[in-house]
Amino acid sequence: MLRTHTCGELRPEHIGQTVTLCGWVQRTRDKGAILWIDLRDRYGLTQITLEEGVEAEAVRETARHLGREFVLSVTGKVAERYSKNDKMPTGGIEIRPDKVEILNPAKLPPFLIEDDTDGGDDLRMKYRYLDLRRTPVRNNLMLRHKMAQAVRRYLDGQEFIEVETPVLIKSTPEGARDFVVPSRMNPGEFYALPQSPQTFKQLLMVSGFDRYFQIVKCFRDEDLRADRQPEFTQIDCEMAFVTQEDILNTFEGLTRYLFKEIKGLDFPEVPRLTYADAMRRFGNDKPDTRFAMEFVELTAIVKGQGFPVFDNAGLVVGINAATCAHFTRKQLDELTDFVKRPQIGATGLIYARVEADGAVKSSVDKFYSQEELQRWKAAFHANAGDLLLIIAGEPNKARKAMSELRLEMGQRLGLRNKEDFSPLWVVDFPLLEYSEEEKRYFAMHHPFTSPKPEDLALLNSPDTIGQVRANAYDLVINGVEVGGGSIRIHDRAVQARMFSLLGFTDEEAKAQFGFLLDAFEYGAPPHGGIAFGFDRLCSLFGGADSIRDFIAFPKNNSGRDVMIDSPSPISGAQLKELSIKTAVLVK
Amino acid sequence: MLRTHTCGELRPEHIGQTVTLCGWVQRTRDKGAILWIDLRDRYGLTQITLEEGVEAEAVRETARHLGREFVLSVTGKVAERYSKNDKMPTGGIEIRPDKVEILNPAKLPPFLIEDDTDGGDDLRMKYRYLDLRRTPVRNNLMLRHKMAQAVRRYLDGQEFIEVETPVLIKSTPEGARDFVVPSRMNPGEFYALPQSPQTFKQLLMVSGFDRYFQIVKCFRDEDLRADRQPEFTQIDCEMAFVTQEDILNTFEGLTRYLFKEIKGLDFPEVPRLTYADAMRRFGNDKPDTRFAMEFVELTAIVKGQGFPVFDNAGLVVGINAATCAHFTRKQLDELTDFVKRPQIGATGLIYARVEADGAVKSSVDKFYSQEELQRWKAAFHANAGDLLLIIAGEPNKARKAMSELRLEMGQRLGLRNKEDFSPLWVVDFPLLEYSEEEKRYFAMHHPFTSPKPEDLALLNSPDTIGQVRANAYDLVINGVEVGGGSIRIHDRAVQARMFSLLGFTDEEAKAQFGFLLDAFEYGAPPHGGIAFGFDRLCSLFGGADSIRDFIAFPKNNSGRDVMIDSPSPISGAQLKELSIKTAVLVK
Repeated sequence: MLRTHTCGELRPEHIGQTVTLCGWVQRTRDKGAILWIDLRDRYGLTQITLEEGVEAEAVRETARHLGREFVLSVTGKVAERYSKNDKMPTGGIEIRPDKVEILNPAKLPPFLIEDDTDGGDDLRMKYRYLDLRRTPVRNNLMLRHKMAQAVRRYLDGQEFIEVETPVLIKSTPEGARDFVVPSRMNPGEFYALPQSPQTFKQLLMVSGFDRYFQIVKCFRDEDLRADRQPEFTQIDCEMAFVTQEDILNTFEGLTRYLFKEIKGLDFPEVPRLTYADAMRRFGNDKPDTRFAMEFVELTAIVKGQGFPVFDNAGLVVGINAATCAHFTRKQLDELTDFVKRPQIGATGLIYARVEADGAVKSSVDKFYSQEELQRWKAAFHANAGDLLLIIAGEPNKARKAMSELRLEMGQRLGLRNKEDFSPLWVVDFPLLEYSEEEKRYFAMHHPFTSPKPEDLALLNSPDTIGQVRANAYDLVINGVEVGGGSIRIHDRAVQARMFSLLGFTDEEAKAQFGFLLDAFEYGAPPHGGIAFGFDRLCSLFGGADSIRDFIAFPKNNSGRDVMIDSPSPISGAQLKELSIKTAVLVK
Repeated sequence: MLRTHTCGELRPEHIGQTVTLCGWVQRTRDKGAILWIDLRDRYGLTQITLEEGVEAEAVRETARHLGREFVLSVTGKVAERYSKNDKMPTGGIEIRPDKVEILNPAKLPPFLIEDDTDGGDDLRMKYRYLDLRRTPVRNNLMLRHKMAQAVRRYLDGQEFIEVETPVLIKSTPEGARDFVVPSRMNPGEFYALPQSPQTFKQLLMVSGFDRYFQIVKCFRDEDLRADRQPEFTQIDCEMAFVTQEDILNTFEGLTRYLFKEIKGLDFPEVPRLTYADAMRRFGNDKPDTRFAMEFVELTAIVKGQGFPVFDNAGLVVGINAATCAHFTRKQLDELTDFVKRPQIGATGLIYARVEADGAVKSSVDKFYSQEELQRWKAAFHANAGDLLLIIAGEPNKARKAMSELRLEMGQRLGLRNKEDFSPLWVVDFPLLEYSEEEKRYFAMHHPFTSPKPEDLALLNSPDTIGQVRANAYDLVINGVEVGGGSIRIHDRAVQARMFSLLGFTDEEAKAQFGFLLDAFEYGAPPHGGIAFGFDRLCSLFGGADSIRDFIAFPKNNSGRDVMIDSPSPISGAQLKELSIKTAVLVK
């Protein structure tokens, strides 16, 4: 090795040893008689000290002309540091160098390589390799590494086998848009990149692998939002001969193991909530349960008093923002504006304060007597000083808006601390959801999800088909859907029925998924599984909102890697070999 | 769980317990009064026994109609087995069932699900999910899982961080053909799938990650041979602040660890051989060193005796096939035919036998006296009973042919036992190789490989450029190149020079690799790395020749996945969205 030690490992017990360190110049300070260099590597920082009349003038001369981010090899004796720095693990020592060698000089970086950088997003993406030098960004990726190893350790210990499934697969119409790859050897034909290894992991169950996992790249050609990437990573798992209960227990175990190993946290049992209850109590199938502020349905209480907004509403729903009666008119106007945003969609916000004497003062006093308002207060279990926030409208819309308002209030009240973690299983999802746009049902999870056996009869009538529940479940932590899965169909007839419900003709089902339907005829075991969004899980553990800083080389919102400048045109010869032409429209 | 135990775990100590097993019917035997079922899962086989008058007639009736590969749940008591089967881990017990439930029936499989199957390759590929049920195939994938976990354990223990690099990258002209992915959001532009994460791992070194690894899918759109796949897996590694010596030691450590963990084998130090010596002694840069049979150069000894084949040859080279003097005329003719095959390319084979009395009898006796032949014998260190095999010709061609003959003789003599392992480092590869076809130099490893500093001056003259050696190395085991790597260039000027030697204009180099050249200006550390072919490594450890059975879902030689029938045409709507057209030529 070009070094004897790293920049993070020397301690007072090394004093007197001659060592060689390699690393980057974090900063230099030149006080004339004394000159300091902070040398950085992945493991830490070490101070190099050069004193007039002590260190050789030639070495001091080299040191005087170093710039930030120069790569050095420094050889010298470990010495006791005069003014110890308790904040640095190496703060008890310094190096007094005999030799300072520049292994590579560096241009001035386009932004500061410090914990807090002055680099904007675009610059940091273009020079991602410099951004990755910053300790917080590198720590994110080290966290990711640790999590991946811990996931593998746990699952390996539970007899799961990691099997690599193919990346060059087949395009299928269901789900999101596929990325495709033209085949040179099969002109006019294309591979697709997997949106998930779903069918392959099911085939592995048919093969008797019993327990499968993989930490695997998946691909979706969707329009990107801030927290989506065209390529993302899943912890993909499947088990045979299990019920939903077994899967929840196994992966609750994984979740607990990760919290313990990575964050040092112990958890009680993870609570379970049905989809129906989650929607009723939080207006959301991935509720943030770090705080309560549950929905109170007021429809029955408030109707018939002549207030048209409530009288015409399908649902009147509220939350008790405890201790917020002091909110000013301005704050309440802000909240009203918030719920009226187009993406939230409420028509307005009604509020009521519980005053010190217990009286309720509302924005709709002219319609409701104090006696009526006291019934509201009782429904909310509200106390003096509480603020009641109420939205009325079409039930789904009102719930969605109230869910957003609840999250906003949780944020404002500091109830969403990133170091608190509240995991939750949401279960009993509907099997199908109806698209008004396309006038047909879509699989809520995916077409391989098993209906609950007790709901199978409901599939027989168009009136009840939407009520069929699935053996499907999500793991939600802090309002983030971290994982989701289901018990799968393992019966050919049920699977064929499902494809038909989703609008596939027999021919289409056979062309796309014939291999799976065939496989189900050769002895398919009952099976089920789950997949975790690994990028998201890492960002959650890292206390961040965006997944981007937990991906070494992410793409921007146009799907571009601005560092390598990709995608890019390819040569005419390449196109010809692949038997394709570009048909770029004038934009 | 639907079972209480697996089919591999019950032992005499479980006798008397009521258990439930799930699995597949391996076979049934119906002797009228007694009926046996062998139930199989990943963990083993368990015998179920149903006796007339003991097990209920309804249960026996179910059991009587089972087919191979039916999926069952069997509940019953563990009983002592009358005739114990010591070959089966569960051979001391049997299950006497109260209940036999068919979880899923099965059609008759298209081939036998046994260790030795009657299924041909095509059928096994089409029904890969059934082929994977066979114990030897499943064991291959379990070996692969164990190896992957062991690799991670070792590298994690050595402070390597696993970082995922992107799959959607940029097409580059150097190397093999890229698979490309049209970008919908950037019409007319394409991503490419990585042939390796080479530039990304180097950027991670520039970022200060210090030690990186990844077990990662890579892609090459090449015409396929039996042992190549369009997608394959690498163990990809890189280290900063190291010399070649450090890398060889670190990955010799990994190799040793794997042999110990997986095969229980200890190894002495892995020998090193220069490329030049490997070519001279074995005619091959990946020699199989499980056996010696080293080349003996006879050119100086045999010339000038009037035998034109030798007199006109650039090289006369032989091997001593010890103890093979008894080879018949027929065997020798076979060997002659072997070396004359077009892909081997020798013009003929000369042989000489050392007889019991020490006399040498050759196929060219009329040109060489016994005295001359005794000098051959001395050169070969040959003894009575040995067979000398000699090829003459243009040196490279003669070496190549002799290398093939050496391997063939090793095979015939049983010197290439799959359970013997002989690892070897081949070092000091040439930096560049000249292509007569394209009349230019190509990088022998890749364009990022560092020339040996002591050979840098040789780059200055066209006459000596081919003599420049690289800090490049391969790990060879049993004649298979298992891994290869190099110390990289970390200096912008040297890298730019290399691109220029490889025929890039400045503009091309900047357009393709500008980000890397830029990165080298911001403080790049000295670094190097290695990549192992993971599929190949697994097949080697598994004692197999082909990588295909170590890949869960491989593609055939036309790059097709015949199970899912991919690649396949995509819809016109998809093509339009991607701004491409197919231009399929009439074949």
